[in-house]
Amino acid sequence: MFMTQLEMARQGQISDLVREAAAAENIDPEILRQKIAAGTAVICRNNKHLNARPLAVGEGLRTKTNANIGTSGDDTSIDKELEKAKVAAAAGADALMDLSTGGPIDDIRAAIIAETDLCIGSVPLYQAACDAVLRQGKPIVDMTVDDIFDGVKKHLDDGVDFITVHCGVIRDTVARMEREGRLLEVVSRGGSFTVEWMLHNNAENPLFEFYDRLLELVRPYDAVLSLGDGFRPGCLADATDRAQVQELIILGELTQRAQEAGIQVMIEGPGHVPLDQIEANIKLQKRLCHGAPFYVLGPLVTDIAPGYDHITAAIGGTVAGAAGADFLCYVTPSEHLRLPTVEDVHEGVMAVRIAAHAADIVKKIPGAIEKDNAMARFRKNLDWEGQFSVAIDPAKARRIRKESGVDESHGACTMCGALCAYKVMNERKREKAAS
Amino acid sequence: MFMTQLEMARQGQISDLVREAAAAENIDPEILRQKIAAGTAVICRNNKHLNARPLAVGEGLRTKTNANIGTSGDDTSIDKELEKAKVAAAAGADALMDLSTGGPIDDIRAAIIAETDLCIGSVPLYQAACDAVLRQGKPIVDMTVDDIFDGVKKHLDDGVDFITVHCGVIRDTVARMEREGRLLEVVSRGGSFTVEWMLHNNAENPLFEFYDRLLELVRPYDAVLSLGDGFRPGCLADATDRAQVQELIILGELTQRAQEAGIQVMIEGPGHVPLDQIEANIKLQKRLCHGAPFYVLGPLVTDIAPGYDHITAAIGGTVAGAAGADFLCYVTPSEHLRLPTVEDVHEGVMAVRIAAHAADIVKKIPGAIEKDNAMARFRKNLDWEGQFSVAIDPAKARRIRKESGVDESHGACTMCGALCAYKVMNERKREKAAS
Repeated sequence: MFMTQLEMARQGQISDLVREAAAAENIDPEILRQKIAAGTAVICRNNKHLNARPLAVGEGLRTKTNANIGTSGDDTSIDKELEKAKVAAAAGADALMDLSTGGPIDDIRAAIIAETDLCIGSVPLYQAACDAVLRQGKPIVDMTVDDIFDGVKKHLDDGVDFITVHCGVIRDTVARMEREGRLLEVVSRGGSFTVEWMLHNNAENPLFEFYDRLLELVRPYDAVLSLGDGFRPGCLADATDRAQVQELIILGELTQRAQEAGIQVMIEGPGHVPLDQIEANIKLQKRLCHGAPFYVLGPLVTDIAPGYDHITAAIGGTVAGAAGADFLCYVTPSEHLRLPTVEDVHEGVMAVRIAAHAADIVKKIPGAIEKDNAMARFRKNLDWEGQFSVAIDPAKARRIRKESGVDESHGACTMCGALCAYKVMNERKREKAAS
Repeated sequence: MFMTQLEMARQGQISDLVREAAAAENIDPEILRQKIAAGTAVICRNNKHLNARPLAVGEGLRTKTNANIGTSGDDTSIDKELEKAKVAAAAGADALMDLSTGGPIDDIRAAIIAETDLCIGSVPLYQAACDAVLRQGKPIVDMTVDDIFDGVKKHLDDGVDFITVHCGVIRDTVARMEREGRLLEVVSRGGSFTVEWMLHNNAENPLFEFYDRLLELVRPYDAVLSLGDGFRPGCLADATDRAQVQELIILGELTQRAQEAGIQVMIEGPGHVPLDQIEANIKLQKRLCHGAPFYVLGPLVTDIAPGYDHITAAIGGTVAGAAGADFLCYVTPSEHLRLPTVEDVHEGVMAVRIAAHAADIVKKIPGAIEKDNAMARFRKNLDWEGQFSVAIDPAKARRIRKESGVDESHGACTMCGALCAYKVMNERKREKAAS
């Protein structure tokens, strides 16, 4: 009889995927099995995604990173998105979400999935919305319940490893949001489609109302449910408000129901959050969702830096990761301004990897601080090739030094030249050793 | 009789400079006077720096930012440094430190001071080192005590508003550092000169031994003493160790002595610090130095990101600022690799301003969150000119949108095109209002 990863883990079985993911993580597979059984970690790997490396996400594991790619109605080039997939993989992202909403999105998704061996996520509601709007010329609110579930099935059939589903967006919470008032209301794209659909059709969110149907649909693929945060704050002023926390409570209940059905779950989180509220957000999610892995977008610690939101997100992402977030979604310099370019994707992945690594140092993930210590030793010895070898972006570090036209004879860099503190210190030691 | 700002404040006098600085800060001058009297804020403004705006730094005030510029032995162009001064000022830095150590450094310093009306800092020990090494062909360790004090006087005469002096680097702490062991020992340039000088001459640090001479020298200029952190950690592994904390204890004592002599003080801090140690570092400094303003470099939360250290520093700087750091020194993408370019200076200032602003939101500085709220409202209305007007870098935000070749007819950006969540939401509201 078919068993899901969660069911196998609960029965004490260490599956091949768990073994493979544990090896990549350099941990004991039995430890990983226990985390999966407890629901504090998940293995992202759709049974149909045969070319994919299984990705473990959760408590005590290396903080993972995701790059969002995909077309929009304004920019439908497949080639550009495939280039982004390659660049994100080369830059070290652990996962890719294909968020395409423009052009032949079925073909684009298939091409992106085939392009790398990375874990793939998607938002199947975009499928139903695009099929309705783009193929049938209908407004989004005319999607039927079957359209929505057919979209989910399409993505699962294509091998998507984790699907973002905004199951926690319900009518009661919309009313609660409206009573409190918000500057930006609903900024999640999937969340906004769901709210509009509910209000127009005077009906409950189908992914909530027919949640058991969703669980049955997902089961044979053993994909991870990534419960989306449709009420995530879109600006600092809306952070940690009633709508956001109410949704999180509901997501906690849905987590339990999914796990009871043998389906693995992670939770998506904000968003735009003032620095001093980030830790509370992580603790709250971990408690309300019984330790389920937390996947956050940013969080961005200010709203006023378009052009630099890879930085505002890296700030929040580091604090979130250090407080226990397990999976960080990148934000690129183009966020709030345009679909990212290939260069933006590279910069976004580097920024989120910095955040994940700085968090892993706090989490005491084995192997994390050791990289920093190696860098320190190479710096002390002015060993530039050594420094590049442990740098997060060796090519960029090498290029910056090269462009400076440095005088290689003194061994230092053009910042201090011969007055380099390492050089001054090393010379004294050499003299002392010689005397 | 001449009185310093600190003495006037203690006597209840609100000086013209306090009035001017309070106006820039949009606070009651009496409040600022009280902070100055208590030593929890300082006014940076040398009596000889007539073209300068006085800069208030300290508790409860807007978090300030500094850009380090200046030549090195490998790169001695005055023009480039003047361009950096202009770019840093245009990008919104509050202060500039001229750290020149190459070429005609007296002329460079004078030119930089004349170029803008920003507050200026420097490290006068570089003067003595350069005068010894560059003009007289002697090794740094041959500097005399008078050379060191002459260097300080030169900078004060030129109008430097705050001087970094590594008075807390003493022989006892060197021994303590060596007993514990460190990966990178002394990475502060001034700190390394001082340590080498002490070891070679078998003598105590003149800026410690003759501290009263220093205080007398500074008094008529009423410059701020910025007590340098010669033992600041140069890698995560060395953070918050005995040498660093021992130096901070000594700086606390020196703070008290300076304040008793009517001289204003701020304290410089690390450096490279794991995220979870940053808050402790700030609290420790504030307690040991009786609330004196804290000026931090970074802190960098990982060592492995050369090429991205404006980001690693913005992460640490935000957390430091939120925990109470008052003044953030930028770090550019070129840190650890080369003297920064003009473009690096711009990127560095933007990153540190993001950190300072995100911290000011946590500190509840009046006017901070209001900018984010304005941005949120402009975003909701898809008012792009409004968004640019409150963006930290309007030119860059505008350029990114323009380069995307966006279809202006739908009003959104190329990220979501017609499926923009704001657009979807606004259309429903319009329909509802019309019905």
